[in-house]
Order: sequence, then C-alpha cells, then structure tokens
Amino acid sequence: MSAVSSRPGAPAAPARRDAAATKAAILKAARHLLARHAHADITLKDVAERAGVSAPLVLKYFGNKESLFARVMSFDADADALLAAPLEELGRHMVRHVLESQRDRGADPLVRIVFAPLHGDQGDVLRANFRAHVVDALAARLTGPDPGLRAELAVAQLIGLGVMYGIARGPRVRESTIADLADRYGPAVQAQLTP
Amino acid sequence: MSAVSSRPGAPAAPARRDAAATKAAILKAARHLLARHAHADITLKDVAERAGVSAPLVLKYFGNKESLFARVMSFDADADALLAAPLEELGRHMVRHVLESQRDRGADPLVRIVFAPLHGDQGDVLRANFRAHVVDALAARLTGPDPGLRAELAVAQLIGLGVMYGIARGPRVRESTIADLADRYGPAVQAQLTP
Repeated sequence: MSAVSSRPGAPAAPARRDAAATKAAILKAARHLLARHAHADITLKDVAERAGVSAPLVLKYFGNKESLFARVMSFDADADALLAAPLEELGRHMVRHVLESQRDRGADPLVRIVFAPLHGDQGDVLRANFRAHVVDALAARLTGPDPGLRAELAVAQLIGLGVMYGIARGPRVRESTIADLADRYGPAVQAQLTP
Repeated sequence: MSAVSSRPGAPAAPARRDAAATKAAILKAARHLLARHAHADITLKDVAERAGVSAPLVLKYFGNKESLFARVMSFDADADALLAAPLEELGRHMVRHVLESQRDRGADPLVRIVFAPLHGDQGDVLRANFRAHVVDALAARLTGPDPGLRAELAVAQLIGLGVMYGIARGPRVRESTIADLADRYGPAVQAQLTP
C-alpha cells in the first residue's frame, strides 16, 4: 500500500484514487501488445511505456511479467460479467456485454482467444483458460442435451461479433446501436442456450 | 514456364503435375507465418523453409514477397467458393464450407482477418479486401432492408465458428460431424440472409 517512490524521469506515482484506472491501463497495454507480439518478445518495459507508467509501478501492481500475463490470459473475471444474467435473457445480455465492452472500454471479454497462435505454449494456456472459464462455465448453466456443444456454438457467435466489431471493423455494425444489434443477433445466441 | 534450374543444396524442382500442390503449400506456409509474425518480419526464405521448397521456387510461382503476401491477403478466390450456393441454402453451405476447409485443408476462407492487428498498415489492406471480397459480395446477393448489416452479422457468425474450430479448438465442435454442425448453426446464419 505504500506509494512507489518517485525517481527522476519516471512518471509520478498516481494518486491513490487512480489505482484502479492505472491497473486498467496496464492490463489494456498488456492486452494490446499480446495481440501483436509473441509473449516471449514483450518486456515489462514495453508494457509500462505503452501504459504511460513506470516499470516499477507495473511490478507493484502485478508482481512480475508472468503474473501480469497470467492475469491477461485468464478469462475468469470477464466470464463473471459476461454470464451475469438469467438464462432466459442471457443471449441478449452477452451480445450487449461484448459490444459495450468494445465500445466503452476498447476491450472485449473473449476476443483475445484469437491471438493464441502467436504465443506458442502460452497459447495452450489461453485455450485451456478459455475453455474452463468461459465455455464450461456457460455449459454448466444449460439444461437439455449437448450443453458443451451448445455452449461452444453460442460462444463462437460472440467471438465472431467481437472480431467483426473490433478487428474487421465492420462499418455497419459499428454505426448500429447496441440495442438494434442485440435484437438482431441475440436470438441466435439464445437459440443455442434454450433451444 | 521453364523449370527452375536445380542448385546444389536446394530442393529439387517438383514435377510439373505437382505445381498446384506446391503453390498450395507455399500459400499455406505464408498464411501460417502471417498468423504468428508481423508482415515486416517475415522473409521469403522463412516461407520457403516452412513450405519445404527453395526460395527461387517461391519467386517462380509468386514473383516476390509482396505479390505472395498480396495473394494471401486477398479473399477473392475464397469468397467465390464460400458464396457458391443459391441464396436459400447459402447459410448451411457457408457453415459446411468453413468447416470442411478447416478439417480437410487446415485452412479457412475467412479467419485470417483476425490477424489484422499484427500487420500494421497491411492490416488495413486485409480489412479492405475482407470488406470488398466477402462482406460486400454477400450483401450484393441479399434483398430487403439493411443488406450490408445483415451480411456483416452473417459473416461474423462464420468467423466465430472458424475461430472456435481452428484457434480455440473447442473439443465438442471438433468431434461433431459437419452435417450436425450445419443443422445447428446454419439456420442462424440463414436468418440473417433471408429473414
């Protein structure tokens, strides 16, 4: 809880109330870099520079590079928010949540799974986390036959929407309202959940 | 049309009838590398080594690195096969085509759009090609309101399926038959095409 001491040339430590914003900026920087470079090629300094903070501040909040990257490679917290709706409204909620995350925070709860091929063995960690935290957590909510397969197909739809919005940058999706997109895309997701 | 002359240490030029397979292997190698490394960091030699051919053979077939990569960054030929079905059956056809491409050829007509962030300015070329060759070509087939938006949403579903199969490697999707997946996933795609 003690403040990181200032050093000449290093950014000033943020005020206490900015800790959450600083952590978020560091995580966002790490996500950005992990979408563009192999895990092994990214240094803590790269992350700190992109986040506009000092490397010691990254260490203070996240311990070391491995624990920071483990945090980025986890879907645990994202899955909690993604799945936070009653089952009968979950399709529409998940569509809204993906789009709001992209639009309002420049993030996405799921889409970083697409960068697994960049990261060698760490890509397998990403896949295993994705399966456990997202797909299996959703499947556990479902009743009826083939819950695992239906969960994979529902999540596939959400990944595709996130890619179209945030990576392919489809102009019609980006100019539509989230409510309209939820009306158009939510029912297909819901059909996998409660067929 | 003349054969590339053999050099000591270089792989022998393939027989004439293997030209198509060799070209396919070179394209596959280029796709593989472009999913893992920035465009600027990949050399023609890297592509040749991964494809198991000589660099001069890559030059013979594709001219230079830029024209090879332009080919990989085009979706033109892929869109022809993806869209080769009557509109009323197109949803199911596209689902089958994505899955068969993944399973039988280790390729995917669409999924390389997800690697756009890796490639800087070239990522924008990839996005523009994707929009023109795939999304706009599909939209031109649709009747009724908002064809562009409906095309983006249908394509989003297909990208998501390709990511789930080929990148996230969802075990239930991978152990299902393509016919079963087409039955489960095709109707949602079709609902965007002929609502």
